[in-house]
Amino acid sequence: MEDIDAVILPYMADFSKLQGITAARNLKLVQTQTTGYDGVHDLVGPGVAVATAAGVHAASTAELAVGLAIASLRGIGESVRDQTRNHWNPGRWPGLADRRVAVVGVGGIGEEIRKRLDPFEVELSRFGTYARTDEHGEVMGIDELMDKASGIEVLILIVPHKESTHHLVGAELLARLPDGAVVINVARGPVVDTDALVAELKTGRLRCASDVFDPEPLPEDHPIWALPNALVVPHNGGNTEAFLPRMTSLLKRQMLAWAQGESSENLVADPAGGKG
Amino acid sequence: MEDIDAVILPYMADFSKLQGITAARNLKLVQTQTTGYDGVHDLVGPGVAVATAAGVHAASTAELAVGLAIASLRGIGESVRDQTRNHWNPGRWPGLADRRVAVVGVGGIGEEIRKRLDPFEVELSRFGTYARTDEHGEVMGIDELMDKASGIEVLILIVPHKESTHHLVGAELLARLPDGAVVINVARGPVVDTDALVAELKTGRLRCASDVFDPEPLPEDHPIWALPNALVVPHNGGNTEAFLPRMTSLLKRQMLAWAQGESSENLVADPAGGKG
Repeated sequence: MEDIDAVILPYMADFSKLQGITAARNLKLVQTQTTGYDGVHDLVGPGVAVATAAGVHAASTAELAVGLAIASLRGIGESVRDQTRNHWNPGRWPGLADRRVAVVGVGGIGEEIRKRLDPFEVELSRFGTYARTDEHGEVMGIDELMDKASGIEVLILIVPHKESTHHLVGAELLARLPDGAVVINVARGPVVDTDALVAELKTGRLRCASDVFDPEPLPEDHPIWALPNALVVPHNGGNTEAFLPRMTSLLKRQMLAWAQGESSENLVADPAGGKG
Repeated sequence: MEDIDAVILPYMADFSKLQGITAARNLKLVQTQTTGYDGVHDLVGPGVAVATAAGVHAASTAELAVGLAIASLRGIGESVRDQTRNHWNPGRWPGLADRRVAVVGVGGIGEEIRKRLDPFEVELSRFGTYARTDEHGEVMGIDELMDKASGIEVLILIVPHKESTHHLVGAELLARLPDGAVVINVARGPVVDTDALVAELKTGRLRCASDVFDPEPLPEDHPIWALPNALVVPHNGGNTEAFLPRMTSLLKRQMLAWAQGESSENLVADPAGGKG
């Protein structure tokens, strides 16, 4: 164990089963297979460098975000339910075109979502940690989200989960969203106050399509399962056939860098959690 | 009745209930609310001009095509079925990124589909009535589709239904698609040989996500309802909230043109059917 310098964590690892890693006393680097790294610093301590798989999952997660938005706005969940009853039930759905869409989070995946939404004839706004202007226009500060909520018909969440984003979407913000608004969470479950979301969904006023939940896995008796205006996807965000070739290629580059004493890609500095 | 010059057909009209229109003996123009116009010439005869709603439905239909592709390739139908059983069932799905996608049909809606697919990191090919090169690159002839089929993982259909496209996707072409390929039909039901598609779906070798069927509405005892690898949407292609403002604006322009004796938009010449 004392000879181990670096460790690659399993994809979507349950850290409670990885305590054995602490026996590797000379560990220098941990490589995750996720973009997020919530809990990794707690597991290995502050002296060990952590590198993520940022970039590997961006395309998969971004396409799921757009797919969930279309699916919710076109009633695809309802169509699947009708299909199980052999019921032809056409109807008018809101659709994505002409909607006011907000992407909250302008990191790697947020940028991939912006790019993919660009040709869909939506009115896009973006929110980041601080207000600024980048090559694609204005980025508002997340502190402005509450004031802007009444104009957001599709709210797409792709921020890391940390203290400042915990329950970012709570009862008050949800109450300010217009009737029929859709909450899309491809970030982390606890970015949304699940109880508050379920309360709004139960009235039928809002819709949601989510890849992540709090708690996760979603327990069998959770009330969200039964809500037809909720679309539940079991954290499949980054998990596509694009995963293996892209991950293999990252790990090869990282191992070569370690062997040659060079700096790793995707090193994260602060122990405040991430996303993927 | 003899004073009627022009008629606007109801959206998604059942022509068998519109025979009364033939009493308008001096009818000069029929305006549809769909992009397709299959059956309209048969209803009103060859002497009456037909104008379609081409353009009005393009955004809605194109976004549904992309949404159906993502939904099928990310197992969203399966997630909805799992949701009805409170079953958390994560898994790896193919995903859209890195897929070889063919768009068959390069008219107005086909172009909107191309535009929307552009940022999704796919390998796109396009097929039109005849081979050519346009500002977006190569368009292959539909007569090359059979030869190229083995390289098509996602087949998106958006051609008009006419004699030359009837059963364009039949048993032989389906057999040449690679395992796991997805057939997306947002054109017209009879562009696909439904029996041949169902046969391939039953083996589990292919998937489909379709907004249109043959026959339509899909009868209650049709075998496709029961197939979990088929995603059935009940012809909602153009039917979103974008519909009303865009249609109203077209009809205003058309009425103004009629009143001023100018030529209408979207006039169609040949009585060979369309799409929408």
